[in-house]
Amino acid sequence: MKGSLLYEGKAKKVYHVDGEPNQLILSYKNDATAFNGKKKDRFEGKGRLNNLITSKVFEYLKQNQISSHFIEALNDTEQLVEKTTIIPLEVVVRNVAAGSITRRLGIQEKQPFEPPLVELFYKDDELGDPIINDEHAYHLTGISEEELSQIKQMALKVNSQLLQLFKVAKLKLVDFKLEFGRLEDGTIVLADEISPDTCRLWDLDTGEKMDKDVFRESLGDLISVYETILQRLEENTCAK
Amino acid sequence: MKGSLLYEGKAKKVYHVDGEPNQLILSYKNDATAFNGKKKDRFEGKGRLNNLITSKVFEYLKQNQISSHFIEALNDTEQLVEKTTIIPLEVVVRNVAAGSITRRLGIQEKQPFEPPLVELFYKDDELGDPIINDEHAYHLTGISEEELSQIKQMALKVNSQLLQLFKVAKLKLVDFKLEFGRLEDGTIVLADEISPDTCRLWDLDTGEKMDKDVFRESLGDLISVYETILQRLEENTCAK
Repeated sequence: MKGSLLYEGKAKKVYHVDGEPNQLILSYKNDATAFNGKKKDRFEGKGRLNNLITSKVFEYLKQNQISSHFIEALNDTEQLVEKTTIIPLEVVVRNVAAGSITRRLGIQEKQPFEPPLVELFYKDDELGDPIINDEHAYHLTGISEEELSQIKQMALKVNSQLLQLFKVAKLKLVDFKLEFGRLEDGTIVLADEISPDTCRLWDLDTGEKMDKDVFRESLGDLISVYETILQRLEENTCAK
Repeated sequence: MKGSLLYEGKAKKVYHVDGEPNQLILSYKNDATAFNGKKKDRFEGKGRLNNLITSKVFEYLKQNQISSHFIEALNDTEQLVEKTTIIPLEVVVRNVAAGSITRRLGIQEKQPFEPPLVELFYKDDELGDPIINDEHAYHLTGISEEELSQIKQMALKVNSQLLQLFKVAKLKLVDFKLEFGRLEDGTIVLADEISPDTCRLWDLDTGEKMDKDVFRESLGDLISVYETILQRLEENTCAK
């Protein structure tokens, strides 16, 4: 079923599916990278955890009328998805100030954003994924005003749903990054992954960091933290 | 008439006006700074040229139904303006790619923007005047969505008028930076200056740089270039 390798990214490999030109297989790697690839490491079991967490999150979103490229988990490290052409935007939603925005704009960590703040970054490793505004997005990606508005609305709807999902799992959703892709007919859908690699999650009781910041800031054992996230999601969602 | 010093910036001193609490005097300095103050120099006569050029530009804009804080030039280096509280935004309009945007987003110099591109920067020297999006502007400056939309419309209207003004003076208006302030009643008006310190201007025939890039890139005699700009504007505007 798994066809030839289409693309290898920092966190995933993407394979064709034999006989299904509109599907792809995402294979989650054990690699971790941060600071635009400057910090690198491998963690046995990370690929499995991000694949299973992402699958769980996309299943939950589907139950709540937010569809994505996700079709199904195939095994511990691989998932089947609809083939999309990724729009080169990172759409970040922030509920609370943390990470780059505190340094960039001098906003104190933990300051809440009400309403949640949406930021766009241009996906370009060589340029260091620079922050952009809406007009840059039109110019650089060819996306229309209406499409960008639709993407932002989807991102905020995902935020509302994820805030609930993670709250039940005793986690505060601080911020997260989404990517969107186009199906063959041009329809824009949620794509990529939603995992502790792409979300900032703080323990609701202790405030402890339970996401990729554990790796970025060398705070402890990444795998046991990601394992806890998966367990809490499994205990608290209907989807098996 | 000139009262006490209110504030000294990199390019201008601002004075109170005795007996006129809603007016200020801007005194243009001979200092030139670039790269967030890292490059510095003084040019005898620069204050006079920027004061006279800004006065000419604001008079021209007024004739074309775009009002600003500008009241009148008082002498070679000083102008009388309405007192405003400056909104900490730098509003940049770009007709053609040049300068920071080429490095930041990998856009080739001279690539045209159609429609013109508007960028916002948060005026904060310590943070290096970072680029921001609309939502950051609401959060950081307290400006409303309607007010920001009004500011962008004014910026584009200024662009249309300035493109014409400079074209007659055989200059291509590449990009420029505007600042806006609030009058005592909250009304937002165009403020600050419009000069070769705040505009990129290329000679229409030769493509030669005729603005602060002459200083930034050490291309030649800044004063003779600014003098040429003033002469061309004087030859080609009705306003004396």
